[in-house]
Amino acid sequence: MPFQISIGPNLRKSAFFDATVQSGVQNFSVYNHMLIPGHFGDPEAEYDRLLNGVAMWDVAAQRQVELRGPDAGRLAQYLTPRDLTKTWVGQGRYVPLCDHDGWLINDPVLLKLAEDRYWLSVADSDIHLWAAAIGHERGWDVQVDEPDVSPLAIQGPKAVDVAAALFGDSVRDMRHFAFEKITLAGIPMILARSGWSKQGGFELYLMDSARGSDLWAMVAEAGAPFGIGPGAPNDIERLESGLISYGADMRWQTARANPFEVGLSAMVNLEAGHDFVGRAALERIAAEGPARRRVGLVLDGRPTPPDHSVPLAMGDSVIGQVCEFAFSRRFDQTIGVGLVRADLVDTAEGLTTVLEEGAVDTRIAPLPFGKK
Amino acid sequence: MPFQISIGPNLRKSAFFDATVQSGVQNFSVYNHMLIPGHFGDPEAEYDRLLNGVAMWDVAAQRQVELRGPDAGRLAQYLTPRDLTKTWVGQGRYVPLCDHDGWLINDPVLLKLAEDRYWLSVADSDIHLWAAAIGHERGWDVQVDEPDVSPLAIQGPKAVDVAAALFGDSVRDMRHFAFEKITLAGIPMILARSGWSKQGGFELYLMDSARGSDLWAMVAEAGAPFGIGPGAPNDIERLESGLISYGADMRWQTARANPFEVGLSAMVNLEAGHDFVGRAALERIAAEGPARRRVGLVLDGRPTPPDHSVPLAMGDSVIGQVCEFAFSRRFDQTIGVGLVRADLVDTAEGLTTVLEEGAVDTRIAPLPFGKK
Repeated sequence: MPFQISIGPNLRKSAFFDATVQSGVQNFSVYNHMLIPGHFGDPEAEYDRLLNGVAMWDVAAQRQVELRGPDAGRLAQYLTPRDLTKTWVGQGRYVPLCDHDGWLINDPVLLKLAEDRYWLSVADSDIHLWAAAIGHERGWDVQVDEPDVSPLAIQGPKAVDVAAALFGDSVRDMRHFAFEKITLAGIPMILARSGWSKQGGFELYLMDSARGSDLWAMVAEAGAPFGIGPGAPNDIERLESGLISYGADMRWQTARANPFEVGLSAMVNLEAGHDFVGRAALERIAAEGPARRRVGLVLDGRPTPPDHSVPLAMGDSVIGQVCEFAFSRRFDQTIGVGLVRADLVDTAEGLTTVLEEGAVDTRIAPLPFGKK
Repeated sequence: MPFQISIGPNLRKSAFFDATVQSGVQNFSVYNHMLIPGHFGDPEAEYDRLLNGVAMWDVAAQRQVELRGPDAGRLAQYLTPRDLTKTWVGQGRYVPLCDHDGWLINDPVLLKLAEDRYWLSVADSDIHLWAAAIGHERGWDVQVDEPDVSPLAIQGPKAVDVAAALFGDSVRDMRHFAFEKITLAGIPMILARSGWSKQGGFELYLMDSARGSDLWAMVAEAGAPFGIGPGAPNDIERLESGLISYGADMRWQTARANPFEVGLSAMVNLEAGHDFVGRAALERIAAEGPARRRVGLVLDGRPTPPDHSVPLAMGDSVIGQVCEFAFSRRFDQTIGVGLVRADLVDTAEGLTTVLEEGAVDTRIAPLPFGKK
């Protein structure tokens, strides 16, 4: 059932809004109070570009929360269970954020720009309010702000060729999550080897929103020989790759989960000894063991995704939830991700996904899909 | 330019989602990560119902942030500049929330349910993260949570008749912002005399989301003799009435404003002596005087609203911003709200609203419009 989106002054427009409209965007979602493209009318072609070529995505809705000042590093470390001791300037790191009770509230990439300046490139929740409150309440000398930064992603196996065409061959040697400050035709940006897919690529953190259309056009032109085309964060590829989607796989309000449950134990560095938000709660959970586990799921047939999480059942008992599923052409089956009771994670059979159209036989599979 | 909305598992569905779909909703916006109806295909009829009859609105996206525990009152008071000393159980109060720098971050209605239990019925920002962080960092004994509560508004001059048909004639004597716990056919809810319009009405805070369709049907049936029909928070009526829309009129990230600038000085009770978030900053601003003022605006002709804020200019100088405007049938002119430099608030002429189609002559008017 297609509905229109009410575009109004309460929703922010991306620096690339005009460019995506000119490129034929067909629908939008909302992320961090900002319009984010959904697709451009040909989801199959967009998936193919991501898997076999190169796609460009407006991810300006991935806003930056800047921590700046003498205590910026202290605050960054206090906000995440991950030990940041060995983080160097120019390095990005995936940093789960938990609230004081140990529930995940976001899973940004942290960019260390300088010893006294960090960005959190955040998923869909108002981390700036939370981080600023904590910095102030602790009396630390740090400003929390949202700078004028709008990421544009180029993703896919040929993304590196597009980046090389734009920035030179040295980008081929950039390590995953490394970033550098760079200028392209007078446009200031951060170039990072990162992105929300497992197909490889870069994110261009545009630092002047007035130049959004210019940057979009330059990337489109440099990418033309490689068949670049517009796209958006791709749900099917992320399910195949097992990437976490905060908001779909868990959310503070609707489906709380802690890092141990969703496979992020390695990011909770309790042995490091630093204090951080949620430490006491996470120590308790670590001792008890998590109640649930994140799993891959394979569903029989080609049921229609319901656009919201649904129960995972064993007989008449609900033993977890199916957060999202979709048909994967790559694996020729319907795949999904979900959370299941930890003691039942090795259950071989008898599971069903409970849909309005009926129960669908479901089995648990390792993440990412296709792993040998 | 109409675009579709991507409905996916990252966006929450309201308890009234199915009912609004069956009632013919045509488009949605997103508010607090939740789908909220935009209109039902006939904006003129929806406006007429609100002004002359009665409309029912799904405002479940107005989420509740619950403060519960021995220090709940202490936290509630610390979160807002408004003095809550004389707030009784069963009373709602409009409470602006500011960050530590004095910028508005939300403007909820506070409901005092008990001495140790409060709800903040919030506008579009993640106040639960902010409030929980502050409570924890201060070491107070208070839990911050999102309960299963979904407000349904009935608004318009005949709303009181619909409420009387549902709940009895005693509702006619309820004071503005008063509320009570009530049960209707076994459905638990809070009935409040409130709502985001100046046409009068009630909000039914449904406390069991599984009963959304039931409640919707009961209200529709009780309202049928009064011509009730579906609607949504109405931008034109709110502009006419001068109501604040957090997200459109100001937002932390895009257009920060403090309470003095937007006409909420009476809610900043510096003389009360209680400590609250942002007190030092607001004392400074109070001493200096606000830099800008919120004003009504009248634009020449019938220009097309651009769906985002635009500059307000005097000659070549930008002296403010026009946050939102629309054509008002009631006043037969194009009206809007904006922020203007405080020293220019009495400027009689020479102002223009800067649109892509050109500059439109604009004059400042008192809020609410039509005030004698």
